[in-house]
Amino acid sequence: MDYFNAPGRHHLFVPGPVNIPEQVIRAMNRNNEDYRAPAIPALTKTLLEDVKKIFKTTTGTPFLIPTTGTGAWESALTNTLSPGDRTVSFLIGQFSLLWIDQQQRLNFNVDVVESEWGRGADLDVLESKLASDSAHTIKAICIVHNETATGVTNDLSKVRKLLDAYNHPALLIVDGVSSICALDFRMDEWGVDVAITGSQKALSLPTGMGIVCASPKALEASKYAKSLRVFFDWKDYLKFYEMGTYWPYTPSIQLLYGLRTALDLLFEEGLENVFARHKRLGKATRIAVEAWGLKNCTQKEEWFSDTVTAVVVPPYIDGAEVVKRSWKRYNMSLGLGLNKVAGKVFRIGHLGNLNELQLLGALAGVEMILQDVGYPVKLGSGVAAASAYLQNTIPMIPSRI
Amino acid sequence: MDYFNAPGRHHLFVPGPVNIPEQVIRAMNRNNEDYRAPAIPALTKTLLEDVKKIFKTTTGTPFLIPTTGTGAWESALTNTLSPGDRTVSFLIGQFSLLWIDQQQRLNFNVDVVESEWGRGADLDVLESKLASDSAHTIKAICIVHNETATGVTNDLSKVRKLLDAYNHPALLIVDGVSSICALDFRMDEWGVDVAITGSQKALSLPTGMGIVCASPKALEASKYAKSLRVFFDWKDYLKFYEMGTYWPYTPSIQLLYGLRTALDLLFEEGLENVFARHKRLGKATRIAVEAWGLKNCTQKEEWFSDTVTAVVVPPYIDGAEVVKRSWKRYNMSLGLGLNKVAGKVFRIGHLGNLNELQLLGALAGVEMILQDVGYPVKLGSGVAAASAYLQNTIPMIPSRI
Amino acid sequence: MDYFNAPGRHHLFVPGPVNIPEQVIRAMNRNNEDYRAPAIPALTKTLLEDVKKIFKTTTGTPFLIPTTGTGAWESALTNTLSPGDRTVSFLIGQFSLLWIDQQQRLNFNVDVVESEWGRGADLDVLESKLASDSAHTIKAICIVHNETATGVTNDLSKVRKLLDAYNHPALLIVDGVSSICALDFRMDEWGVDVAITGSQKALSLPTGMGIVCASPKALEASKYAKSLRVFFDWKDYLKFYEMGTYWPYTPSIQLLYGLRTALDLLFEEGLENVFARHKRLGKATRIAVEAWGLKNCTQKEEWFSDTVTAVVVPPYIDGAEVVKRSWKRYNMSLGLGLNKVAGKVFRIGHLGNLNELQLLGALAGVEMILQDVGYPVKLGSGVAAASAYLQNTIPMIPSRI
Amino acid sequence: MDYFNAPGRHHLFVPGPVNIPEQVIRAMNRNNEDYRAPAIPALTKTLLEDVKKIFKTTTGTPFLIPTTGTGAWESALTNTLSPGDRTVSFLIGQFSLLWIDQQQRLNFNVDVVESEWGRGADLDVLESKLASDSAHTIKAICIVHNETATGVTNDLSKVRKLLDAYNHPALLIVDGVSSICALDFRMDEWGVDVAITGSQKALSLPTGMGIVCASPKALEASKYAKSLRVFFDWKDYLKFYEMGTYWPYTPSIQLLYGLRTALDLLFEEGLENVFARHKRLGKATRIAVEAWGLKNCTQKEEWFSDTVTAVVVPPYIDGAEVVKRSWKRYNMSLGLGLNKVAGKVFRIGHLGNLNELQLLGALAGVEMILQDVGYPVKLGSGVAAASAYLQNTIPMIPSRI
Repeated sequence: MDYFNAPGRHHLFVPGPVNIPEQVIRAMNRNNEDYRAPAIPALTKTLLEDVKKIFKTTTGTPFLIPTTGTGAWESALTNTLSPGDRTVSFLIGQFSLLWIDQQQRLNFNVDVVESEWGRGADLDVLESKLASDSAHTIKAICIVHNETATGVTNDLSKVRKLLDAYNHPALLIVDGVSSICALDFRMDEWGVDVAITGSQKALSLPTGMGIVCASPKALEASKYAKSLRVFFDWKDYLKFYEMGTYWPYTPSIQLLYGLRTALDLLFEEGLENVFARHKRLGKATRIAVEAWGLKNCTQKEEWFSDTVTAVVVPPYIDGAEVVKRSWKRYNMSLGLGLNKVAGKVFRIGHLGNLNELQLLGALAGVEMILQDVGYPVKLGSGVAAASAYLQNTIPMIPSRI
Repeated sequence: MDYFNAPGRHHLFVPGPVNIPEQVIRAMNRNNEDYRAPAIPALTKTLLEDVKKIFKTTTGTPFLIPTTGTGAWESALTNTLSPGDRTVSFLIGQFSLLWIDQQQRLNFNVDVVESEWGRGADLDVLESKLASDSAHTIKAICIVHNETATGVTNDLSKVRKLLDAYNHPALLIVDGVSSICALDFRMDEWGVDVAITGSQKALSLPTGMGIVCASPKALEASKYAKSLRVFFDWKDYLKFYEMGTYWPYTPSIQLLYGLRTALDLLFEEGLENVFARHKRLGKATRIAVEAWGLKNCTQKEEWFSDTVTAVVVPPYIDGAEVVKRSWKRYNMSLGLGLNKVAGKVFRIGHLGNLNELQLLGALAGVEMILQDVGYPVKLGSGVAAASAYLQNTIPMIPSRI
Repeated sequence: MDYFNAPGRHHLFVPGPVNIPEQVIRAMNRNNEDYRAPAIPALTKTLLEDVKKIFKTTTGTPFLIPTTGTGAWESALTNTLSPGDRTVSFLIGQFSLLWIDQQQRLNFNVDVVESEWGRGADLDVLESKLASDSAHTIKAICIVHNETATGVTNDLSKVRKLLDAYNHPALLIVDGVSSICALDFRMDEWGVDVAITGSQKALSLPTGMGIVCASPKALEASKYAKSLRVFFDWKDYLKFYEMGTYWPYTPSIQLLYGLRTALDLLFEEGLENVFARHKRLGKATRIAVEAWGLKNCTQKEEWFSDTVTAVVVPPYIDGAEVVKRSWKRYNMSLGLGLNKVAGKVFRIGHLGNLNELQLLGALAGVEMILQDVGYPVKLGSGVAAASAYLQNTIPMIPSRI
Repeated sequence: MDYFNAPGRHHLFVPGPVNIPEQVIRAMNRNNEDYRAPAIPALTKTLLEDVKKIFKTTTGTPFLIPTTGTGAWESALTNTLSPGDRTVSFLIGQFSLLWIDQQQRLNFNVDVVESEWGRGADLDVLESKLASDSAHTIKAICIVHNETATGVTNDLSKVRKLLDAYNHPALLIVDGVSSICALDFRMDEWGVDVAITGSQKALSLPTGMGIVCASPKALEASKYAKSLRVFFDWKDYLKFYEMGTYWPYTPSIQLLYGLRTALDLLFEEGLENVFARHKRLGKATRIAVEAWGLKNCTQKEEWFSDTVTAVVVPPYIDGAEVVKRSWKRYNMSLGLGLNKVAGKVFRIGHLGNLNELQLLGALAGVEMILQDVGYPVKLGSGVAAASAYLQNTIPMIPSRI
C-alpha cells in the first residue's frame, strides 16, 4: 500500500512534476530493452526530429539527457561558455536564483540583474548593459522564460529585439522548463541559442529527461567553450548521432517510449490548442484569485503566467499552512512559497495534462482551505467567476464534434 | 491512440463502471498465472473470507462468478427458486424492471409491485401480500437496495421486519449492485438470503466479477431449487471449495489480485468511513441540485441515494443533451435517463473511488453544461452550496493527521 | 509482494491461461469508461468485425460475452437447442466430458460417443449414427476441435463431409477454446454453426470473455430454441447490435481494449504465420518427448495437437509430482493430468504468445525435472532434437529482415 | 504498435539494461507526485537506509542521483579529487577505458595500468606503484569491480590488502555498476571509499538512477576536493538530507517506488541467495561455452564474471553477426563485442532478475545461432552440460517448499 493513502484521485496542482496522461503511463509500462538493438535508434531518430517542434526550431539540435532541469542548465552553460565568461542573468525568483548560483559555482562572471519577486526581468537594465558593452564582454544572456516561483513570464521577443538593436553577439540561453509545451516558444524566431526543458513539466512525463536544444551558433560555440564537462558534453552525443546509434550512454527506455507518446498527444491536440488551453487555465485561475479578493504575486498583466499562479495570502495567514491543509484534508498538492516569498504565497500549478473541470475542482478546494485557515472567502465565488469565463471559451473537443 | 482523445483526466460520473484506484490498476497490471498452482487458491481463500465483510455477514457463503451483475441476478434466482415459484418484485426503475424481466423469462411467477419512478418499493403492498399469504405461496421477495436509474434507496430493515412480523419464510433476495461497499449493508442483521454485487460498482474494479453471497437458508434452498443452471450453479463452486482448489472453471487472475487490493483499500479506509464519504458526496450533490433550482427524481428524503442522483431537467430541456454536451465539451461522462425517465433526467454517479474535490469539479461542469443547454443556472451556485456543507464535514485524512 | 515469489520470469506452460503480450498488458492498464459513451460502441464495432477473421467467417455473427469458456458452451447450446433435443457428443477427454456433463444437465438427450483418452472423435460411429438417422433426430453434433486434456485435435472437415454426405441438417457446434487463433479454423468452409473460444487461450488475454460465433443457420435456430436462457441469450445482444450500442449489460472496458490489441498483434504477425509458429512449437515439443523416450498421450499423428502435448510418464512416476516439482524448483507451471489420466501424464501447453526460445527453456526444465523425479532422461537430449528441427524451420522475424 | 514486433517474450541477455521484475514494473506504473509532500521524503528515508545494505556498509552515505552510470562516475571523482590529482586506473576493457577517458577529461593525472583485454587489473603493478609512492602522490585508485566488456571480475579485497600493506591513504573508488546486487560487494570490509552502481544493472530497474555511496573518508575528502561540480555535488544532497526533505532537485517519483520494490525483492530473496543464483547462472554459462568448444574471453578462472560472459568466436566468424542474427531470427538480444574485441566476441549477460530456465532457453538459442553463422556446434551440447550442473545445484524456491 502507498504511503499516506487517501480515497479518490490525488489532485496534483504543483507546477511540476505534473499529471501524466494515462496513455503515457501505459506506454512506459514496459520492460527494459537493449538500447543498441535497432528499435531504440529508430525510435530515437523520430524523437530527435519531432522534439524540435516543441521548440519551434528547424535548425536546432536537441539533446535528450538523462538528467533533471538542473543538469540541463549545466549542460547549456558548460557547453557554450568558458570559465570567467560574463553572463547577464536575471534574478526574479527562486529558480532564477538557483540558476545564478549554478552559474557562479561554475565560475562564470555573473552580472546579476535583480527584480522584485513578482516582477519580470528588468529589460531596461539589460538595454543599458548592452548599450555600454561595445567590447562584447557579455557572452550570454541567461533568462528564465517562466519563473516558477512567482508565476512570471518574461517576453523573450523583447530580449531578442534588444540584442539585435545593439547588434550584440551574446548567446541567448533560456530556461523554458516551466513554459515549453505550455506557452508558445519560438526558438528560431526569437533567436534563442540554447533552450532547456524538463520531462516532468508541460511534457507531462516523469522526471528524468533534461531536454536541451542548441542553435547552430550555440553548437559552434561549443567547439571553443572551455568549461569542463564530460557527462554533459554535447560532443559525445554528436559523435553518436553521426554513427546513428545516438546514445553515448544508456538512456531510459521507458522515458523514450513515454516521450514518443507525449509528443503524439501534443501533436494530436495541436500545439496551438495546447497553448490556448493553458491560456484558459491560467486566466480562469487569475479570475478566481481576484474573486477571492486576493492578489497575484505577479505584479503586472504583461508577466502573468499561464502555467503557475502564486497567490499572495494576507499577512495573518501562513501560505505553508494552506499547502499543508490542502494535502491533509483535501488530497490536493499545492505549491509552497519558496525563499523570499515563503509563507507569503501558495502556488497553483496549472500546466501539463490538465483540463478545466480538474482546475475548477481544485479552485473549489482552495476556497474551502482558505476558510479553514481563517481567510473569509465567499465559498463558490472563485469557481463562479472562473466558470463564467470558461463557459464562454472552452471549445468543443475536436475529436468529439 | 485512444478513440476520441481529450486532454486531462476524463471525469467519470456515471453510476458504474466507476473510477478504479491507481493501486488496483497497478495490482491488475500483470500476466496470467496457472490457476491450479498454489498461489491462486491461497489468494482465493483470503478473498472469500474477506469479501464477507463487505456484506456484513459471518454466516454467508460468497461466490465470485466470472460474470456481470445480470449474471449474478440469474445465479441468485436459479439457485434458490424453481420454475413457477411466486416472487414478489418491486418495479421502481430500469434496473428493477430488467430484473423482473429476467425473473419472468426464467419462468417465475412474478408478482410485480410497481411504484412511480422516483419512489421506493411500496412496502404497504408487500405487507398486505404477506398478510394474505398464510399459505406461503410467496417464495422470494426480490428487491433492489438501490435503484440506479432513479437514485432510490430502499430500507431493507423494514422488509425484514415485515417478513418477521408475518413469520413469513420467503427468501429475501437483494440486488446490492449499486449499494454494497458504498451504503451500509447488513446481510446478517437484515436477514438477507442472497445479496448480489458487481465488481465495477462501489468495489471500483473493472467489470467481470459478479459477487453473490448466500445465507445458510439460501444454500439449503439451493439443494431443492429446480431451476436449470450449469454455469451459474453454486454446487460446482461448493464442490471445489471443499477440495480447496476453489475454481470450477478459469477465473480472471487479474480480477482476483484487483479484488485483493480493492478490499485492502476499503478496509484501510474503514468501511464506516467509506459509507460516511458516500453520505457526504450524496448530500453535497443534492444540495447543489437544490441550489440550481432543479428537482431530484427521488421524491422523498427517506429514499435519497448516496451513490447516484437523478436530476430532473425542465420540460424544455433534453436530459440526453446534457449528457452529450458533457462528453463533447467537458470530457465528463454523466448518466443518461433510462426508459420512462429518458430525456427527463440526467444522472450523476457519486460512488466508488471518489473524493470531494473530484465531485466539486464535476458539479462546476454540470453548471456550465446547464447554461449551454439553456437552463438559466447561476454559475457557482451549486458548488458554493455544496462547498459550504463539505467544508464543515470533510474529515482530516486519517493517514495524514 | 506476491504469493510464493521467485526470481526471474515465471515460465507459464499450461494450456491456458497463457502468456499475455506486453502490448496487451499495456492496453489493459487503464481506468474504467462509460460504456454508453461513443468510444466503446465505436471500438466494439471494429472488434465484432475483426473477430470474425479469427473464425474465418464472413457470414457469422460473433458475441463477446463476459463469461468463461464454460459459459460460452452454455450460450452455444441454449440458444440453438431445446430441452430433450438429441445431440451427438464425443467424449475423448476431460473437457469434452465436462461439456457433455453440461449438455446433460441442460436436459439434452446426449448420445455420447466415447473414445479411449488419447484418441480423437470416433467418426465411424458418427457416420453410422448419421446413416441411421434419416428422421433427423440428431439436432446437433458437439465436438471439441482440440481436447486440452489429452492434446488431441479432431479433423472438423471430415465431420462436415459426413454431414454433407448424409445431407444431415444437424447443427455443428464446435468448442475451439484451445484451438482458435493457434490452429487453422475455417468456420465457413467447414460449415461450423457455432464456434466457441475463450479470451485466455490462444488470444492471449486474461480470462473473462467467452467468444461465440453463430452461423446464419444457428441464428435462425435461435429463434425457435426453447432452452431457457437470459444472461446468455443472443437475442439481447442482437437487439443492442441493431441499436448500435452493442451491450445489453456492462462489458469489461479493459478486455475490449485488450482484444483490440490482441487482434492487431495477430493480424500484424499474420494468422497463417501464427498457425505456422504453433506448428513449429508443437512439433518441436513432440520431437523432444520422443528424444526423452517418452510417449505422447495422443495415439496417432493425425490427432497431434499443436497447442498442447500430454506426455505419458512411466508407471513408476507420478505425473502430478512432475508438475509440483516444476513449480517448486524451476518456477514453471506445467499442466496436470486430469481425471482418467491424472498422474499418468503431465501437459506442456505451447499456445498463445510464445516463441521458440521460451519453449526450449521449458523443455530444458522438463529434462531436469524428469531426472529429479527418477526418470533417467539424458539431459539435453530433447532440447538437442528440438533445436535441430527448429534451427531448420524458424523464419526470420518479418519486421526485422 | 512497437517497432520491430515479434511474437513471445523478448529474450534480453545483454549485460544491462536487464529484465525488470513484474513487481517493479507494477510499482512504477503510476502518476507523478509532489516530491515536497510528505510521502516522498518518508519513502526516500527508507531507501537511503536500505540501499546501504546492497553495498554492505553501515557507515557509508548514499546518493541517489538522477543520472546514469557515467554521471555516477563523474560524481564519485569530482567530489573527492582536485584537478591534477594522480589516480591509478586499470584499463582492462571498454568500460574501464571510458572511465579513464573521463578521468583524463576531468583533468586528473591518470596513471593507467593496462592489461590485455580478458585479464584483470594488474595488481603487481599497483603494488610497485604503491611501494614507490611514499610521498603519497597517488590520491585515488580507480578500479572496476566487474569489467562488462570482457566479463572480468577484479578481487577488491586484494586491492585493499595492498593499500593497507603500504599504509597508503589513497581513496579506493570502485565502479560496481555491473556487479553490485549480483556479486558480493563488501564496501566496509574492503575499505571502499566510493562505490558506484546504476539502476538498470543488477538492481533490475529502468535506467535513470546513479547510486553513489561514500565512505566517511570520502565525505571528508569532498570538503576539500577542488573539482568543479554543481549538478553532481554531494554538498547539495547533504544539505537537503539535514533538512529532511532529501532532494536538491526533482527526483523521478517512479524510480523511487521502483527502487523500494527492487530492494524488497532482493531482501526477500536474500542477498546471499541472489549472489548464489548469479554464481549458478555464470557457471552454467561458462560450462556451456566450454561444451561448445569456444573460449571465454576471460583468461583465468580467478577473473570469471558471474554477471556477463564474453564468448570468443573463431576468426572466421564475426561476433557482430551472432548478435544481429540473434535479434533478427530468435527475438533475443546479446551483447556486442566492443572496441578491441569488436567482432571477436559476443556477450551473454546473465545478471539481474533472471532464472535458470530463462538462461537455458538463451543458451539453446545461441547454439542455433552458432550453426546459423557457420560454427559447427553440436546442438544441445551446451544446454546438456549446463543442465547437468544446474540440476545438481538449483535450490528449491524457499517460498514454495
